[in-house]
Amino acid sequence: MTANTPLGPGGEFDIIRALVARWGATAAGIGDDAAILDVPPGERLVVSVDSSVEEVHFRRAWLTPWEIGWRATAAALSDLGAAGATPMGVLVSLSLSPAWLPHVAALGDGIAAAVRGAGTVIVGGDTTRGDGLCIALTVLGRAAAPLRRSGARPGDTIYVTGRLGGPLLALRALEAGRDPSPHPRERFAHPIPRIREGEWLARHGVHAAIDISDGLVGDAAHIAAASGVRLSIDLDALPTVSGISPMDAAVSGEEYELLVTAPALDAARFERELGVPLTAIGRVESGAPGVHALLRGERVALGGGFSHFS
Amino acid sequence: MTANTPLGPGGEFDIIRALVARWGATAAGIGDDAAILDVPPGERLVVSVDSSVEEVHFRRAWLTPWEIGWRATAAALSDLGAAGATPMGVLVSLSLSPAWLPHVAALGDGIAAAVRGAGTVIVGGDTTRGDGLCIALTVLGRAAAPLRRSGARPGDTIYVTGRLGGPLLALRALEAGRDPSPHPRERFAHPIPRIREGEWLARHGVHAAIDISDGLVGDAAHIAAASGVRLSIDLDALPTVSGISPMDAAVSGEEYELLVTAPALDAARFERELGVPLTAIGRVESGAPGVHALLRGERVALGGGFSHFS
Repeated sequence: MTANTPLGPGGEFDIIRALVARWGATAAGIGDDAAILDVPPGERLVVSVDSSVEEVHFRRAWLTPWEIGWRATAAALSDLGAAGATPMGVLVSLSLSPAWLPHVAALGDGIAAAVRGAGTVIVGGDTTRGDGLCIALTVLGRAAAPLRRSGARPGDTIYVTGRLGGPLLALRALEAGRDPSPHPRERFAHPIPRIREGEWLARHGVHAAIDISDGLVGDAAHIAAASGVRLSIDLDALPTVSGISPMDAAVSGEEYELLVTAPALDAARFERELGVPLTAIGRVESGAPGVHALLRGERVALGGGFSHFS
Repeated sequence: MTANTPLGPGGEFDIIRALVARWGATAAGIGDDAAILDVPPGERLVVSVDSSVEEVHFRRAWLTPWEIGWRATAAALSDLGAAGATPMGVLVSLSLSPAWLPHVAALGDGIAAAVRGAGTVIVGGDTTRGDGLCIALTVLGRAAAPLRRSGARPGDTIYVTGRLGGPLLALRALEAGRDPSPHPRERFAHPIPRIREGEWLARHGVHAAIDISDGLVGDAAHIAAASGVRLSIDLDALPTVSGISPMDAAVSGEEYELLVTAPALDAARFERELGVPLTAIGRVESGAPGVHALLRGERVALGGGFSHFS
């Protein structure tokens, strides 16, 4: 770990200094123009950026500042999970209005908690004035053979981690002006990026992977397009939380679970080692790229019409 | 170069698709959850993020969308110049209001032009709805021995690249409601990140470096704080454009020139090889960390009072 470089004096640096002091050992090497990291020999760099914007990705009334920080960071780290990469560092870019200044400490605590939860550190970033709050998180990871969307092959089984629908239940309650039940609220406000799960899957012969932050069927369509294959998904097989129908689970967003295709995986061993279920939900087929969603064996339309996804 | 991964259908992806089509060979490997890059053996990864926010970092009335894209990207790349790093890729995170949609193509063209100018490619990013325009650019580079702020040693000479004050002249005209003269306007709207200059300086024994985007004396204070030394700067030696006083040049921001400290550099050779002047402007001394600015041998106060910088 590099020591943090002392910063010169000046207005905007006060926020950075306060955050760095608060982050302690979770912040490493901050304060230079750029962060410096090493990718071990034989491994590749995996990098992604993910932005969360107030009133677009979250509403201030629904989440605490800590949760907003956690959630934005978990969403960004989820892309490393989808690549099967081990996190190496996070850069935090904050653009915030003066009204956000009293909440910067809690926001920073939520960011740091998610970074620590993924076993990594904050290595840099910047802070600027802006309208509302815009958090752009750059996540850096490493993997010998990063997973991509483009490797799915006909004959692969399709698997999904976790149980779907919790965030959708929470959103329905919030949009109706009700308090969500504790478990759905936890799934919505405090999602866990599937980092260890992604590493496990990369070690066990997965061909293609994506996180289903935009909903299972929508993100399956990305694998179909990238791999040039058809994904046939059995909605009856979807693992759901209580109160969620298969049709709901197929389109529930903000899940941060992983959808993967592979010749065969030991799902029981996955759950035993990681404490998270892994469920076979369909099959990769040759044919025009797209997603066929089946309910009791019949093809069904989802979302804003079937053409939206096929 | 990796081929771009086909994206599935859906609203927000249309902007990304349009940009990727427009960027052509300047976009490489976009469309997966994360970008994958390789750092050559013996080199280190250098990474930085830099945000530009409408009405904070730029005003729409002063710059074209192309210039806003160029300028934000040049500002981010400048951090790689300060590290003496060779660019490997850029991630573009755009948060924009609907009013910006007609200008996305020109904005993207300006971003791509700056990326190409630095000899690199766009490897990823994201696009979201937001208020106004917020561009967060993550720049990735590589260097065997990245330059930092913390290496300045007593006895070093302080050098600066280029000529200072062009952006300040342009800003003064714009703030007074006048059109800036062509050269200052060009320096303000179309800054050139000092990438090749940074690589040259890293090869020639520089001890510490920073880009002076916040103004020469303010950024010199960062080197002083990080290195635990005093920087004594002779304002009469500052290289300036016509119409700029030494006091102006000391605080002119948005310059994106490099300030470095080194035992001795061949400034004539630097200018011959790179076409940009390199000027000795002072000396690193032991003592309480800070900046002493001297005008005709007398110490002077700068900015909002001397204490601001020492």
